[in-house]
Amino acid sequence: MSGTAQIGVTGLAVMGRNLARNFARNGFTVALHNRTASKTRALVDEFGGEGTFVAAESAEEFVAALERPRRLVIMVKAGDPTDAVIEEFAPLLEEGDVIIDGGNAHFADTRRREKELRERGIHFVGVGISGGEEGALHGPSIMPGGSTESYASLGPLLERIAGKAKDGAPCSTHIGPDGAGHFVKMVHNGIEYADMQLIAEAYHLLRSVAGYSPAKIAETFRTWNTGRLDSYLIEITAEVLAHTDEATGKPFVDVVVDQAEQKGTGRWTVQIALDLGVPVSGIAEAVFARSLSGHGALREASASLPGPTATPLPEADAARFADQVEQALYASKIVSYTQGFHQIQAGSEEYGWDIDLGSVAAIWRAGCIIRAAFLDRIREAYDARPDLPSLLSDKQFAEEIGAAQEDWRAVVASAVHQGVPTPGFAAALSYYDALRAERLPAALTQGQRDFFGAHTYRRTDREGSFHTLWGGDRSEVANG
Amino acid sequence: MSGTAQIGVTGLAVMGRNLARNFARNGFTVALHNRTASKTRALVDEFGGEGTFVAAESAEEFVAALERPRRLVIMVKAGDPTDAVIEEFAPLLEEGDVIIDGGNAHFADTRRREKELRERGIHFVGVGISGGEEGALHGPSIMPGGSTESYASLGPLLERIAGKAKDGAPCSTHIGPDGAGHFVKMVHNGIEYADMQLIAEAYHLLRSVAGYSPAKIAETFRTWNTGRLDSYLIEITAEVLAHTDEATGKPFVDVVVDQAEQKGTGRWTVQIALDLGVPVSGIAEAVFARSLSGHGALREASASLPGPTATPLPEADAARFADQVEQALYASKIVSYTQGFHQIQAGSEEYGWDIDLGSVAAIWRAGCIIRAAFLDRIREAYDARPDLPSLLSDKQFAEEIGAAQEDWRAVVASAVHQGVPTPGFAAALSYYDALRAERLPAALTQGQRDFFGAHTYRRTDREGSFHTLWGGDRSEVANG
Repeated sequence: MSGTAQIGVTGLAVMGRNLARNFARNGFTVALHNRTASKTRALVDEFGGEGTFVAAESAEEFVAALERPRRLVIMVKAGDPTDAVIEEFAPLLEEGDVIIDGGNAHFADTRRREKELRERGIHFVGVGISGGEEGALHGPSIMPGGSTESYASLGPLLERIAGKAKDGAPCSTHIGPDGAGHFVKMVHNGIEYADMQLIAEAYHLLRSVAGYSPAKIAETFRTWNTGRLDSYLIEITAEVLAHTDEATGKPFVDVVVDQAEQKGTGRWTVQIALDLGVPVSGIAEAVFARSLSGHGALREASASLPGPTATPLPEADAARFADQVEQALYASKIVSYTQGFHQIQAGSEEYGWDIDLGSVAAIWRAGCIIRAAFLDRIREAYDARPDLPSLLSDKQFAEEIGAAQEDWRAVVASAVHQGVPTPGFAAALSYYDALRAERLPAALTQGQRDFFGAHTYRRTDREGSFHTLWGGDRSEVANG
Repeated sequence: MSGTAQIGVTGLAVMGRNLARNFARNGFTVALHNRTASKTRALVDEFGGEGTFVAAESAEEFVAALERPRRLVIMVKAGDPTDAVIEEFAPLLEEGDVIIDGGNAHFADTRRREKELRERGIHFVGVGISGGEEGALHGPSIMPGGSTESYASLGPLLERIAGKAKDGAPCSTHIGPDGAGHFVKMVHNGIEYADMQLIAEAYHLLRSVAGYSPAKIAETFRTWNTGRLDSYLIEITAEVLAHTDEATGKPFVDVVVDQAEQKGTGRWTVQIALDLGVPVSGIAEAVFARSLSGHGALREASASLPGPTATPLPEADAARFADQVEQALYASKIVSYTQGFHQIQAGSEEYGWDIDLGSVAAIWRAGCIIRAAFLDRIREAYDARPDLPSLLSDKQFAEEIGAAQEDWRAVVASAVHQGVPTPGFAAALSYYDALRAERLPAALTQGQRDFFGAHTYRRTDREGSFHTLWGGDRSEVANG
């Protein structure tokens, strides 16, 4: 028994619905299923004209509607609901069928599910999908994990519905086995947090130090968006800042409560980076900045702490300062992406995913929230040298950050003196200077660890591990 | 059948051995047990004169040697070995007996074990012990969780062997139920990471910007150790920096490889803080600084990145700069502790532990790695006002940080201009300025989130949650 639908979508909340419509608009026959059948019918009633849908009331009907090997996309909440739906469908499937999880799963869950289903002869593909509701409908950036075999069957469909980069390339590629897709999606979101934090700091500086109005800052971001910072996030920053609140006539940004929320993927990114031993200070500061903003009582209690209030610059200096902020933002952005790609590289090594970093940059060029001209540059850097130790090792990025660094330093120093918090800019600069340092004070740290915990140290002049008898005659003993 | 030993220790590696000796030296009869009995015999042979030991060869013999209710300390590796030993002994115990885990367990494991054993009628007490080998022998700082009932039986023993603060108070107190003790020990270690990173940055600045030799810096730290920074870590910093490598005649710190290692509790602290939504940027930067230092290939590839090399100040200015560094270090330290205590407060609320923050500060005053005069001040602050929203809300700390902040800013700005990485100082300052800020750019972040993900926002002028139809006519709709 085999149906005619090339793909099925179960879970028809807004993301699932838009994804199903995207498949249908691209000429695929799409089987639909939802726990409450009314949603299925509503979709067909409203959008049936966009393509060929096969509405199924039961799980059995849904599975029967799919051509073999079956391709079945689950679009439900991450966590237990995903497991429940997998357990509902897996017994109905046959060897070689493909279950696709398009939710925001933790990659460790995806690894577990892939393994369990592989043992039952079913392909499980965890797919990161970025671009929000609009992206899901018009062309998201798609990050599928799972087996190579499953991508052979699934890839052509995904590439059809994915966003397209300016050169026409589809923003979907096989990231790597098991959880690789969800891992890369997670880091994408972490980088998104960092990007947004850097933009927030740039805005704060332009407002407080340059003395610009939100409208003037919107204009500034619009100009930046025509240059190397050209990106979706810079574009919408200008839109948000240019918006006037209808009710009050004030700038929209001034009537919004200044507490930023989060949904968890930024936090995951940092937690996993810590496990992998990868410094992602830019992402961490972005996550912390959001949580700090939400501690209203703490902020209230701290409002009277001593410190400077920023004095806006004279108009003649403000434009020059704004240019410096662009340099600082760009340099910090290079560092954020350096850290994010380092994490992907480390994850790839840890889990044996063999991820092609250039391809990751390539499929982020369109469809997703961090889409930017910049990503084409990153793709070029990795394509030219796939074993690049770090983005900062790329000659062009090194040159650009080199050209930006004086202004970057000037901006951070201004912020420090004027009392404007720039955790992202400052963390990025410290990372940059730490990487450059010939000697780090970590030698002292390691010496202290040997002093209080006999943790031993290595020497610069010979192999081995050593311990100093700090509590005794302070002679050195070789260890083990 | 009941024995005479008031306490038993199983697992006689260095920490277990020293803890057993500490109990014996304080007049308790101590039952001993180890997987390989030779270690037990060696302890008795070497240190039998220090007190009364009862050496047991088998688990049964060990349990039989203990008076009722039995108090049995497990000193084995965290993780599976701990579970294995618990399973070895639990079946031999009776209702009301107490198993004490003195290892570095993750508090979530402690919560699980406590629950399982409680259901079997056995008290399980996860105990954080700080102070390393020396502390275990001479008086550690002890952080026991578990039931109030278990502390009634166990507390007097722990208080006897614990370190004593200058006022004579023992550095052990009942932290709270189940995993509270291990949680607080974890945060202790996170704060230790931050303290060490701040010290490393101060050293780096004195070396590169003040142009001081390690010996001169040792002297500086010795002077600082007579003031408000008086602490074990400052004391040993001076010792390490004053030490000359015998083989080369060079300063010891210059022959140690500048890659700092870590064992995991700093990382845990940050991971849990992220789950709790507590910004602990100082601890995070400390963990990242260690992992960055260990990425040798990455550092090598980055060595030629453009940037300034620090130019040492003229001698006349160096002393003034060193004073400023002391201010920056002290101010950053206040922030680190503010963040750490915030995390304990948040954990206490999340898990219903009802932790007394003043008592935590009190038992860290001696025995542990972060012991310092400073902790007496924190104790006073919380004793005076147990519901202090934050350490920065304490009048005295606010005054001190206020007095320090100009120098703090000057030091961070110098570091930024001179290319010296100060991730800890800078993160602490950003945290301080963010808390002070009347308005944070988080409003823009939340506006962006509403733009691309319809995540909604709140308004400053009325209740509710709102969404702007960004893709439509940009009117505002109330949400839900």
